Amino acid sequence: MITGKNYIGQTLKALGHNTYKTVNPKLNIENDTIFIDATEVEIDEAVNLAWDAFKVYRKVSGAKRAAFLNAIADEILALDKTLIDMYMSESGLPEGRAVGERGRTIFQLRSFAELILNEDWRDNTFDAAQPDREPLPKADLRKTAIPLGPVVVLGASNFPLAFSTAGGDTASALAAGCPVIVKSHPMHSGTGELVANAVIKAAKDTGMPNGVFSNLNGKGVEIGSALVKHPKLKAVGFTGSVGGGRALFNLAAQREEPIPVFAEMGSINPVIITPKAIEKRSEALASQYAGSITLGTGQFCTNPGLLLTIDSDKTQNFINDLANKTVAIDAQCMLHPKIKAGFVENGANVATQKGAETIAKIEAAVAPNYAPSQVVSVSGKDFLENPKLHQEVFGPFSLVVKAENESELITIINGLEGQLTGTIIAEEEEYTNLQDIVDALEDRVGRIIFNGVPTGVEVCASMQHGGPYPASTDSRFTAVGTNSIKRWVRPVSYQSFPKELLPEALK
Amino acid sequence: MITGKNYIGQTLKALGHNTYKTVNPKLNIENDTIFIDATEVEIDEAVNLAWDAFKVYRKVSGAKRAAFLNAIADEILALDKTLIDMYMSESGLPEGRAVGERGRTIFQLRSFAELILNEDWRDNTFDAAQPDREPLPKADLRKTAIPLGPVVVLGASNFPLAFSTAGGDTASALAAGCPVIVKSHPMHSGTGELVANAVIKAAKDTGMPNGVFSNLNGKGVEIGSALVKHPKLKAVGFTGSVGGGRALFNLAAQREEPIPVFAEMGSINPVIITPKAIEKRSEALASQYAGSITLGTGQFCTNPGLLLTIDSDKTQNFINDLANKTVAIDAQCMLHPKIKAGFVENGANVATQKGAETIAKIEAAVAPNYAPSQVVSVSGKDFLENPKLHQEVFGPFSLVVKAENESELITIINGLEGQLTGTIIAEEEEYTNLQDIVDALEDRVGRIIFNGVPTGVEVCASMQHGGPYPASTDSRFTAVGTNSIKRWVRPVSYQSFPKELLPEALK
Repeated sequence: MITGKNYIGQTLKALGHNTYKTVNPKLNIENDTIFIDATEVEIDEAVNLAWDAFKVYRKVSGAKRAAFLNAIADEILALDKTLIDMYMSESGLPEGRAVGERGRTIFQLRSFAELILNEDWRDNTFDAAQPDREPLPKADLRKTAIPLGPVVVLGASNFPLAFSTAGGDTASALAAGCPVIVKSHPMHSGTGELVANAVIKAAKDTGMPNGVFSNLNGKGVEIGSALVKHPKLKAVGFTGSVGGGRALFNLAAQREEPIPVFAEMGSINPVIITPKAIEKRSEALASQYAGSITLGTGQFCTNPGLLLTIDSDKTQNFINDLANKTVAIDAQCMLHPKIKAGFVENGANVATQKGAETIAKIEAAVAPNYAPSQVVSVSGKDFLENPKLHQEVFGPFSLVVKAENESELITIINGLEGQLTGTIIAEEEEYTNLQDIVDALEDRVGRIIFNGVPTGVEVCASMQHGGPYPASTDSRFTAVGTNSIKRWVRPVSYQSFPKELLPEALK
Repeated sequence: MITGKNYIGQTLKALGHNTYKTVNPKLNIENDTIFIDATEVEIDEAVNLAWDAFKVYRKVSGAKRAAFLNAIADEILALDKTLIDMYMSESGLPEGRAVGERGRTIFQLRSFAELILNEDWRDNTFDAAQPDREPLPKADLRKTAIPLGPVVVLGASNFPLAFSTAGGDTASALAAGCPVIVKSHPMHSGTGELVANAVIKAAKDTGMPNGVFSNLNGKGVEIGSALVKHPKLKAVGFTGSVGGGRALFNLAAQREEPIPVFAEMGSINPVIITPKAIEKRSEALASQYAGSITLGTGQFCTNPGLLLTIDSDKTQNFINDLANKTVAIDAQCMLHPKIKAGFVENGANVATQKGAETIAKIEAAVAPNYAPSQVVSVSGKDFLENPKLHQEVFGPFSLVVKAENESELITIINGLEGQLTGTIIAEEEEYTNLQDIVDALEDRVGRIIFNGVPTGVEVCASMQHGGPYPASTDSRFTAVGTNSIKRWVRPVSYQSFPKELLPEALK
């Protein structure tokens, strides 16, 4: 069923000669399928098809686009065990996670389908004419939002379904009326091709124009770079590392016509734990956070990589308990040998900085791509002085900072890079004293959580998944939830327009 | 009353040694006041003050920020004849225009004051908790928008009031809760200082923190560049040339933390005139467009610099009539000798391209900074083949393209760079045949006008002033109207938050 070829619109092609295979990290072997990198000719063909499709697709009604999205969801479900097995073989993630992530992907597609059944999401406004106004009459003016054009989506290694081929970026862009060219993630191109099959079948069945969706393979950065530089592509969705996202941002900014890049990148997601919270529920917190740190082998962008505490004997006890509970959870498989290598290197880099002390680490031998979780602690002073301690360690790793007092803790927050989330763990009696911490966090993050964990990102209108750089390249937009559709549109005003020529949304 | 100094917050300072004077273009002499460029030390001081002010100002209630904006409007009005005289002496624009632009500036300030009396402009959303949801409970999640931080505003040469010191960018940023550092436009720094006086007095009288507003002089690009690169400034508003705007955009994109740049730049504002419209009302259209081309000496970003027609004898008659009516209007003064020099050079550059024919031009000698208006025509074929004919000529200049047929006309529209506006002049009986033209324009512009002129930009919610690059660097936002406040904020989500710690907008 899997060909390793590229979908140029509805047609499977493989003109190229560069090939690669995906890896089964659990078995530490390559999977069978040979994937063929897209060529320049194929890229151009996909983009030209997308551009032609755009002229038609931007006019397709909301109801018909919704039917397309729902059909994609149906086709993904119809792949059933084939998809789940492929997902597991390419990610090392367990079946429960595969099924859960598929559910989330389906929910996203259906949420956008529901959103576009009416035109309210375009934030339409209407200013009535005032022909008698002095000194000058006012014209009838109406504003709606129109799709930007064909866009490119580069999915995440850690979400082979929900943030990849038909994930949130693709679903929201298709909902907005933008054709999508996916650059398939080389770690799960088989999963990608299966989902691409589903999208292409849905597009055919619901009468969408050829070129509304293409899926290109590419092991290196060349295919993605060529897409981002292509003059006929109008925006970029990306989930991944700061290095990767910034490179795409730079390419887009250097174009003759710069285009928006929505890159959701690194985050260490600070969690502030007050002394009272440690006093009252040290053990429960240690259990809760040991779970959050190791969830999905710590491979979430909202993983709590930085815990901020105020130093005391009780805090030290809490840290010891947290560390022990974390390493008591069995080591789990990571997504790919490269992810594991990065985890080992970055973890060692943080753990060996001045003042850093490993409280606990899984020391027993683990299988090749399994991650030995680790909890490290450091004083507030050392943390403040050393930016290397602020680096993300992607995986089941957390750094606990022991600040001298609340003032130092706020200084630490103010000095952090931009983050997706910030969390406050506190007791009710303290709430009135926490405004300074809330203010400091507000300035550094996109979402603040009270007495919870940052992992678990709800798909709804009030979700903000995105924060000040380098959490994302454009903190004004969210990558999750229905409002993420706003990334792919721009407003247009219609002045004194005849009704028959107004877009549907403004009639 | 004018000192030539910089407002570093509330304090007038002049540590620097580089100086300049403004020019009275009508008299072609320098004005008296010596302006002193801000120094690096002063820039840093203004930014640090702005940052300190931000911590307080972001918490100031909407009602109090509104009082501040209204006080600025009052203080500007109180400057009365002093301001109008200064404006005229630095711009060469007539009194009627000065008074009109002041009215618009006041209206903008008061519009934003009204907008922020309640919190709806933040697009707040609320998702209720569902503690019993399966498989996982849903947390209470609310989203609002918070100010980005201190911002820098670089005003327009052609709007010394409405798009400058306390113009739309400053008013919207202050309304959003962002302190503003204005880089004063060197062509009207006297007007700038008078308005800065008004802002500072209003800030003091309404109890705003020192540093909420600063006004820095600078003749060259160095001061603006230093501000855009400053790590503590979080966004940029600019109105001016493509070269200037792109340079700032590039600087901002190269920062360690990239920041948004809202540059409203060049546009030639295509106007499509159908054969039927020429047939039915050639003379009236010629009069209307002669007026629009020469309005404000053609120094509007929405000036109709490109008329697209379909060739015929009647079209040629219309062009002749338009050209004669345009040059029959007396030559008027331009803003500055540099603007005049650019007008002469760019106009000559377009008029001497292959196939370009000057239909009429004011040939009589004009006073030094006065602009001899000019209408040039060219065939559709020559226009399509030569990008030099697509360049903006800032001033009373229009290029009329004679396309062979409607198909060539649409090819021309598709090949245009991004524009602020596009206009369609047509008869009612043709409306049903115009969809292709509307579709082509939609893709290239931010506002489409029917049977009107692009000059005259209404300040209201439905205005989109901004278009695909190079009309602006971020076509997703408007520079005019109440929605322009959205340029200065980003969303933040609050999850499971105690009521006492929620921002006012979400309580």
